[in-house]
Formats: sequence, structure tokens, C-alpha cells
Amino acid sequence: MKPSKWAALLVAGALGTFIAMANSAHTEKSAQRDRAAIEAVLSAQQKAWNDGNVDAFLEGYWRSEELTFSGSQGISRGFKAVRERYQKSYPDRQAMGKLDFSGLEIRLMGSDAALVLGHWHLTRDKGDIGGVFSLVFQRFPDGWRIIHDHTSVVPATVSH
Amino acid sequence: MKPSKWAALLVAGALGTFIAMANSAHTEKSAQRDRAAIEAVLSAQQKAWNDGNVDAFLEGYWRSEELTFSGSQGISRGFKAVRERYQKSYPDRQAMGKLDFSGLEIRLMGSDAALVLGHWHLTRDKGDIGGVFSLVFQRFPDGWRIIHDHTSVVPATVSH
Repeated sequence: MKPSKWAALLVAGALGTFIAMANSAHTEKSAQRDRAAIEAVLSAQQKAWNDGNVDAFLEGYWRSEELTFSGSQGISRGFKAVRERYQKSYPDRQAMGKLDFSGLEIRLMGSDAALVLGHWHLTRDKGDIGGVFSLVFQRFPDGWRIIHDHTSVVPATVSH
Repeated sequence: MKPSKWAALLVAGALGTFIAMANSAHTEKSAQRDRAAIEAVLSAQQKAWNDGNVDAFLEGYWRSEELTFSGSQGISRGFKAVRERYQKSYPDRQAMGKLDFSGLEIRLMGSDAALVLGHWHLTRDKGDIGGVFSLVFQRFPDGWRIIHDHTSVVPATVSH
């Protein structure tokens, strides 16, 4: 092979490596951005709850009839049913207490979905309550929203 | 524009339409295949359970330390912990009873992940038990596996 061909191969190889690295850096950066965006939704939810604003809290959810919420009451379908479930379970600020999310784990699945595991805890005068949740987020044109929530109460006697 | 150019445009348009339709048919077909593959995993799990074979049942799960299982006992991490949880909760065939999955809803998310909602029911001499589950499946080279399971008991008094 002529030296000029070697040089061309070398340039092509270097270019390929550069493009692969740039792509991976882009992917890494966009993954970081996605995680931050999802964390921001949850942190806005926590703030809204602690302000006693259930409607603002609900903005984290997909406003769709296809939204689902699973738990010890079965499966609730649609944004309206999920809102009613919250309003019924937490009729006033005393029932709502102070919400803390902890131990968040965000697993991106493809480019437009994510699974988020975590713990929730309500500090309340009438008795604390808490447990675990699994959220499925989807990316929409206006941001990430919860399309499915599965929440469980974990009795305080269970170490987790 | 010359007639030959119009003809070329027409051919290109028809070709584009054909490719788009073929693509969409391909996507539809592969979505059907994915749903069928996921249903087959769950149906194999149901059969294994009803044969009293917990190890075969567990083959539906990702054999990884990153497998997670959430419920009223918190979050179990890793295939080994999930197996131990099943062995402890269902020590014998009487405790296992007869398993039925029902009302399966499969939502594909991207090309390699899926969310599956459903109901589970155990018919047992010592008393039936049942509830709802949310499963996240991931596509692996050897097929679809559950990478996260969130299961709740729903008391029989709750209509769902």
C-alpha cells in the first residue's frame, strides 16, 4: 500500500474514533440531562405536596386517560381517577403531612422512557407512613411525566 | 418541469410511500412478536408455578444482581434475594396454590423495554390471595426477562 493510502486510513480511523467518542459523550451528557429533568419533576412534586398543593403535585403525572396507578386498592385508570384517589386518601394537610422521597434510582430505558425506584415517607402528627414506589416516566414534548405509578406501604417494622 | 422529471418524482414518491408502509408493517409485526414473546414468558411462569417448580418460575426474571422486586417488604435486590423471598413466602405447594394471571396489559417502550400490568390470584385451601403487579421487561440476546417487579396484595374487599 502507498504511504498516502496508509495516511488516509489513519485519518479515517482517527475520525471514526473521534465520532464514536463524541457520540458517547453526547449520549452521556443527554443521559445526565434526562436524569436531572426527572429528578426535577420529583423534587417539584415533593415541594408542591409540602405546600399542601395537590394539583401542583399532580402535574408530575401524564394528564391522560391512559395514566395508571397500582397499589393495594388495585389499578386506578386515568388522571381523574388518580386525582380522586389522592383527594380521598389525603383530604387535608394533616393527612398529607411532610413528604420525603429518598433513595432514588433512575434507570433510563431507551431514549424516551425511564424506570424510577424510591422510598417515600410522610411525617405526620397522626402517625408516620411510608413505603416504596416504582414509577415509569415517559418523555413528552413538554417534558418527562409519570405514565405509571405503583406505590406500596411498607410497615415500619420491616427493615428495608 | 419536463415530463420525465414528473415521472421521476412520482416514482420517488411512490417508493417513499411504499418504504414507509413496509416499515410500519414491519414495526407492527415486530410489536406483535414482542407482545407474544412477553406473554409466553408469563404463561411459562404460570405453568411452572402450578407445577410447583419455583426455579422454573424464576427463569422469567433477569438473573442479575441488578434485578429488583418491590412490595410491602420494601425493595429486594438481586436474583438471589428475589429467589429467597419467594422460597420464604411460598415454602410449599399448599402456600403456592394455583396461580392465575389475568388482565394483562403490555405497553412497549422503545424497542427493548416493556411495561406489563396485570392481576395475580392464588387459589388456596388455606385462603385465596391476590393483587396487582407492574413488571418491567427488557429484551436480552436470549429473550425478554423481568428486570423489575412491583407486586401488591389487594384485599378481597376492594373491588378492582
